[in-house]
Amino acid sequence: MSAGTRGTGLAPFDHTTLGQRVLFGSGAAVESTARVVSDLGAQRVLVIAGRSSAQAAHDVAAALPVVARIEEVAQHVPAERAAAAVEVAGRSGADLVLTIGGGSATGLGKAVALRTGLPLVAVPTTFAGSEATDVWGTTTDGVKRTGSDPRVLPRAVVYDAALTLGLAPGAAAASGLNAVAHAVDGFWAPRADPLNAALGAEGLRALVPALQDLAAGQDGLAVRERLLFGAHLTAVAFASAGSGLHHKVCHVLGGAFGLPHAEMHAVVLPHVTAFNAPAAPDAAARLSGLFDGTAAATGLQRLHADLGGPRGLRDLGLAEGDLPRAVELVLPSVPPSNPRPVDAAALAALLRAAWAGAPVPDEGVQR
Amino acid sequence: MSAGTRGTGLAPFDHTTLGQRVLFGSGAAVESTARVVSDLGAQRVLVIAGRSSAQAAHDVAAALPVVARIEEVAQHVPAERAAAAVEVAGRSGADLVLTIGGGSATGLGKAVALRTGLPLVAVPTTFAGSEATDVWGTTTDGVKRTGSDPRVLPRAVVYDAALTLGLAPGAAAASGLNAVAHAVDGFWAPRADPLNAALGAEGLRALVPALQDLAAGQDGLAVRERLLFGAHLTAVAFASAGSGLHHKVCHVLGGAFGLPHAEMHAVVLPHVTAFNAPAAPDAAARLSGLFDGTAAATGLQRLHADLGGPRGLRDLGLAEGDLPRAVELVLPSVPPSNPRPVDAAALAALLRAAWAGAPVPDEGVQR
Repeated sequence: MSAGTRGTGLAPFDHTTLGQRVLFGSGAAVESTARVVSDLGAQRVLVIAGRSSAQAAHDVAAALPVVARIEEVAQHVPAERAAAAVEVAGRSGADLVLTIGGGSATGLGKAVALRTGLPLVAVPTTFAGSEATDVWGTTTDGVKRTGSDPRVLPRAVVYDAALTLGLAPGAAAASGLNAVAHAVDGFWAPRADPLNAALGAEGLRALVPALQDLAAGQDGLAVRERLLFGAHLTAVAFASAGSGLHHKVCHVLGGAFGLPHAEMHAVVLPHVTAFNAPAAPDAAARLSGLFDGTAAATGLQRLHADLGGPRGLRDLGLAEGDLPRAVELVLPSVPPSNPRPVDAAALAALLRAAWAGAPVPDEGVQR
Repeated sequence: MSAGTRGTGLAPFDHTTLGQRVLFGSGAAVESTARVVSDLGAQRVLVIAGRSSAQAAHDVAAALPVVARIEEVAQHVPAERAAAAVEVAGRSGADLVLTIGGGSATGLGKAVALRTGLPLVAVPTTFAGSEATDVWGTTTDGVKRTGSDPRVLPRAVVYDAALTLGLAPGAAAASGLNAVAHAVDGFWAPRADPLNAALGAEGLRALVPALQDLAAGQDGLAVRERLLFGAHLTAVAFASAGSGLHHKVCHVLGGAFGLPHAEMHAVVLPHVTAFNAPAAPDAAARLSGLFDGTAAATGLQRLHADLGGPRGLRDLGLAEGDLPRAVELVLPSVPPSNPRPVDAAALAALLRAAWAGAPVPDEGVQR
């Protein structure tokens, strides 16, 4: 995966870089959004922003030619919300969709862009990263459909770290660790290649020190800027590399047992990393380098602990008796590309360790 | 520039990521090119390849629906060549332009794409990097016009390191050092931002060890793969960041005194780096890290020497008496964004050192 190792070459890959304009500047959301909307030639803007982003949406949209507003957003984009939003877009004659908010607002904007072909501009207020991907998802009767389509990639993203100050430090830490997981799991995901590994690694170089600052109580605009920048890069990497073992585990645990998204990711990631690291030496070395030589999984687990996260899945509500069922559910979705083979016994050990909040083993020590 | 430094935030930026498909695989050029041509729905291919790439072009194009071929390519894309190629494209009813070769072939393909709007696919055989940028250039009466346009960005690039084995090690070294200059100069170029710095830095992580291998006599497919991959990343970074002091110096010296392109770049780069490094600590640290802690400029100069390059501009034919004129010509084109102010005296000292092939000063020692 690393392209710098002496003597070794590169495995073949087929990578599509997604074209997108990225404006970054703290306190500049109003001005930057006006510029990109104007540059796209839009004159009828549909604004999508949940109530928690109402103030930001008010400020950003004040000088824009707004023809409609949607304030009803929800996690996982319920299909009926998407249908209603598409209808609003049609009725209002909108020629551009502007989202202000986290993954739910961006996701609803994507659903509208998918169905209408309207250009999308995103102003994120969290580190969710959806704004940097061409992946969409809608949910019907609890079942989430996802896909990727060039129409849902925002034409422009306006990053203003001041808008993330509405996230409390704990929520920022969880959202930031989620962004870390995008890069780490990307290192061994099905479409991992040296280009998306490079982007993910650079994202981690911004995210990890910023999270360490956050853990040390040094929150502020500079920390949020590095989290936002790093989250952009790791989202680009993740969109390209796809879901690895970690995201498959979390997808199943979240769906079947309703565990809270961000916290679950933070608990599981060190255990998946400990499992894969011996078979993914480039990824392990990249991560270890970020933790001053501490083993990758140990570094991730310490960072999570320093940020005050829960230790184990049992602290998030998973019952010990659910573990066998979890193994059964996860096993069929393990990516064949995972660097270490995953059988039921290995998966049971991994999930039990994550459940108990056990310290991860030292690097190189195989379970 | 580095986004990972504790405590500091990020300066505002406005970055456009260019969308492009990148296929990478040694020995796979024929198959990969057929796939992308088919995926683009093309049925009438205009092939542009100079005589030095005739064999590669024959192999790659053998299974394609070729309607015309152009074998006349030249450095800097003479405008009359471009006009003739546009006419061939029109007369043949081509629906796609395929280039196989170095910067001259790619450049001619871009000129055709610019005037016709036809999609472009590039199969590079050097580390020039033009295939990863939206920059075009044509030359009339010795004056080069350049510009950037989304139409000239190849829709797809097919990288096959086996095709670069036609470059002798010395030519590969010069082309590789040129790719290094794209990233280094990008660190302090007018549109430098943390995204293009991240891409440039990752490109250097591939290029520098590969060039060190080349210097140690370990040429081969694995080395060429890392050079090709690194050259892609640094070209993407350069297209985004623009020309810094180094490229302005080389543009003037090349134009006014006819110095050979790649060798001149290799000689000048360490001197520009030594000049800027004290005022560009993030860039200096990134480079120093690649040279095991050796100062950035010293590391670059040693790498060049190890590759057997000429020491000074005087070895390339620049007369000592030309130095004052060179200073006069370069001074007006120095980018205002250069991290250190550049006056006539500073520029004279820099150019004299590059002329003499003097060892660069230690890091932090200002001239």
